[in-house]
Amino acid sequence: MDMTEKKIGSKEIFDGKILHLFVDDVELPNGKQSKREYIRHQGAVCVVPLTEDGNVIVVDQFRYPFGRVVTEIPAGKIDPGEDPRTAALRELSEETGVTDCALEFIGEFYSSPAILTEVIYMYTAKNLTRGALHPDPGEFVEVREVPLETLVQDIMDGRIKDAKTQAAVLKAYIKEKRV
Amino acid sequence: MDMTEKKIGSKEIFDGKILHLFVDDVELPNGKQSKREYIRHQGAVCVVPLTEDGNVIVVDQFRYPFGRVVTEIPAGKIDPGEDPRTAALRELSEETGVTDCALEFIGEFYSSPAILTEVIYMYTAKNLTRGALHPDPGEFVEVREVPLETLVQDIMDGRIKDAKTQAAVLKAYIKEKRV
Repeated sequence: MDMTEKKIGSKEIFDGKILHLFVDDVELPNGKQSKREYIRHQGAVCVVPLTEDGNVIVVDQFRYPFGRVVTEIPAGKIDPGEDPRTAALRELSEETGVTDCALEFIGEFYSSPAILTEVIYMYTAKNLTRGALHPDPGEFVEVREVPLETLVQDIMDGRIKDAKTQAAVLKAYIKEKRV
Repeated sequence: MDMTEKKIGSKEIFDGKILHLFVDDVELPNGKQSKREYIRHQGAVCVVPLTEDGNVIVVDQFRYPFGRVVTEIPAGKIDPGEDPRTAALRELSEETGVTDCALEFIGEFYSSPAILTEVIYMYTAKNLTRGALHPDPGEFVEVREVPLETLVQDIMDGRIKDAKTQAAVLKAYIKEKRV
């Protein structure tokens, strides 16, 4: 079955600093027409930084859409034209002070594929060399370490709400444990 | 450290059928002002349907923002006022024909907490009774079964791109295997 939806027209509704909203007219496989509302986003990276003690470095950060502090692994947007790997090293350095590490790509995911073009590239980081923190101006974060097993249990028990933290930490855990 | 960002003003940029885009003026913890672009979304559910043979029922579906077919577990938006559990049973029935099952909540996640209020509630479904398919009009999907172990390997190897499928299937796998 050909499930392709063909673009008939596209209208940019909002061209923001981060979000770009479009409403497209599409032709469905049955020939009927419909509309698709979606957001273009430049993509992001996230890193599971694993210390020699078996801890994961996490970041507590206020997330305005939820009006609360959310615990996440280090992450951030990819700059225009930036390689995801470079972005991962930059964000890791900015948020946790890690200056050198063994970075390994563990896959990517689509955050919300029906409405958002955001792709998040996931990495693990080991053999960490840590220097001073130098967060972005206007970025207020708290950095701490959690044992990998505790973080996995926090995900399983529903205390960690962030999608990328759930996906990347569970992948890293299964990979490390060779489950 | 108080990391709260206070709302000073809010402007609705787009009030769509699915997406609602806002740009808010906020006061940061250091007293400076900034803007927050974000999308309100009504939330969604997803279900890992586990058959007695140890398979997971998955759905192949064209995702317009990516212009390709994406393999996902059954999922869908929560209707206004609808209980997530009811939405999960409804979507499971619509997409896979499951008329009765043992539904278990396994946690929720925030798809992209910096820019999107979407929360996705995750469930497993066992003891499946299956009837006829009755998808939404205009929804073109292909339904198939994949062994749980194969699906986990597909996630680990990067062949499954959808965030909710990665998070929910890995959670279900760790839970089932009591890793």
